[in-house]
Amino acid sequence: MSVLVVGSIALDSVETPFGKADHVLGGSGTFFSASASHFTPVQLVGVVGNDYPLHELEPLRGRGVDLAGVEQADGASFRWRGRYRHDLNSAETLETHLGVFSHFAPKIPAQFRDAPFVFLANIDPRLQLQVLEQVQRPKLVACDTMNFWIESRRPELLELFGKVDVVLLNDGEARQLTELTNLVHAARWILERGPRVVVIKKGEHGAFMFTRDSVFFAPAYPLESIFDPTGAGDSFAGGFIGYLARADDTSEAAMRRAVVYGSAMGSFAVEQFSIGRLLEVTRADIVRRVGDFRRLVAFEAELDDDGAPAPGEIGAGA
Amino acid sequence: MSVLVVGSIALDSVETPFGKADHVLGGSGTFFSASASHFTPVQLVGVVGNDYPLHELEPLRGRGVDLAGVEQADGASFRWRGRYRHDLNSAETLETHLGVFSHFAPKIPAQFRDAPFVFLANIDPRLQLQVLEQVQRPKLVACDTMNFWIESRRPELLELFGKVDVVLLNDGEARQLTELTNLVHAARWILERGPRVVVIKKGEHGAFMFTRDSVFFAPAYPLESIFDPTGAGDSFAGGFIGYLARADDTSEAAMRRAVVYGSAMGSFAVEQFSIGRLLEVTRADIVRRVGDFRRLVAFEAELDDDGAPAPGEIGAGA
Repeated sequence: MSVLVVGSIALDSVETPFGKADHVLGGSGTFFSASASHFTPVQLVGVVGNDYPLHELEPLRGRGVDLAGVEQADGASFRWRGRYRHDLNSAETLETHLGVFSHFAPKIPAQFRDAPFVFLANIDPRLQLQVLEQVQRPKLVACDTMNFWIESRRPELLELFGKVDVVLLNDGEARQLTELTNLVHAARWILERGPRVVVIKKGEHGAFMFTRDSVFFAPAYPLESIFDPTGAGDSFAGGFIGYLARADDTSEAAMRRAVVYGSAMGSFAVEQFSIGRLLEVTRADIVRRVGDFRRLVAFEAELDDDGAPAPGEIGAGA
Repeated sequence: MSVLVVGSIALDSVETPFGKADHVLGGSGTFFSASASHFTPVQLVGVVGNDYPLHELEPLRGRGVDLAGVEQADGASFRWRGRYRHDLNSAETLETHLGVFSHFAPKIPAQFRDAPFVFLANIDPRLQLQVLEQVQRPKLVACDTMNFWIESRRPELLELFGKVDVVLLNDGEARQLTELTNLVHAARWILERGPRVVVIKKGEHGAFMFTRDSVFFAPAYPLESIFDPTGAGDSFAGGFIGYLARADDTSEAAMRRAVVYGSAMGSFAVEQFSIGRLLEVTRADIVRRVGDFRRLVAFEAELDDDGAPAPGEIGAGA
């Protein structure tokens, strides 16, 4: 099953304690596509300026990303420049030039309109809603957002939540949106607005997935070297939606596995600048890391499925 | 198997967004004992002043905590007063009165000296070393510490690390001690100083357990209401060591389960002030919460144990 993604296609300049990279491929649409392409065909919709090095997108095309929806407009491409300090937890934005992205009006090519899986990456909720008007009853729609839209487009964002199946956002955004500190409460608040699944990403602290009657957690993989955190969240989303589309399964069991595939892809993304590592990673690498995730949280159950204690288990003083 | 714990026995006054409690039972030895008593007999060693309401420790005795090592000295008891703001992540210490605790010299009663499991709660590393001189070849010794000792007793702390099996500390302490930001690196640094297991507690973000060739992670349970975080770390340690002592097993498989029992006990501790919830929780509550932990991280494997992909799994674009 193919995945349609609408998002930004940017040129990033990034400085971390480990080095710097100038004018490299970035943007939510780009990271998502590079990640999801390991699972399923991807259709990317976005806009670039006439200064964009389109040939640098060719490796994505080579991996099965259909670039027919990448519009080239007169003007400058979206550029972001940022820096990470030693703790790597949050980017300091030094410059943002929206360029042609500031007038972006997504036009979904006719051949993409029946995409069964749709990811609305972090763009203006008004544009996210416009995308939904152009597609035909997808099996699953997921969206991301950010602090800027939570502040400036709250009514449109809440309207969007009524029309999507999955909301992905980070813990800070969840708290800002709901004005609730406790993430269980924040997740319930969002679920009451429409989606049946909320994924709250906590960066290096892992990700929660909440449904109305369950909660799942996957840690972030404890990497020895995190080179550049840029794009980790979009790469997570790419693994998450990519896996669901590949499996053509939106059951809770599939979603749990999807969170793990998302975490694995996020963990690869941070190992190099830009989409470098996402392009070189192999199927065997992904399988190995998912196995690592399984071992990371595995403990032998001593209890049967009903929660009854096994003979001789606990309770001296209980 | 019984557990010997040497730690503080305090009177806490705590203010949280949800209420306040004055002069209630606190201290690392107290929380540890209340938690571990659900698994195994506990022997508590510590000191209180002649103002201490000893009758309030009776419920611990009723749960199998031997108080023969609780010395009553002339002077005031250790008192701590703290406040938690809305995010509940870190305590603001308003007052600390060490009282008789400032001259504490642990004397291990003869009948406790062959305890097979020993927990050196957060006290001066010089005193932790004195305890080890008084006990007879325990099967397992674990220790905790804090920022104050990392700053002021670094040589003694590193000497202690050479004599214990398990070091428990939180992520901030691990980074402060090792001067390494990355927790994988920090854990390796500590393991190189002697212990075969390092548990790094991340509060609401869960806990990692590192050995020389493995890593395990357990999330903190996503509670809907965290009432008072005081004592969560010591309650974690109580569940961790208590479970190992109960099972009389120090294998890695047992340690993984022990981390989950520790996380469960930490999650109970924060549901009420002081040791209130730890005293009332039942065996069934513990079993149920460990089951909740299992479901929280459970995802159906699609891969065989060698990490090879199941037929048809992933790889469209790979």
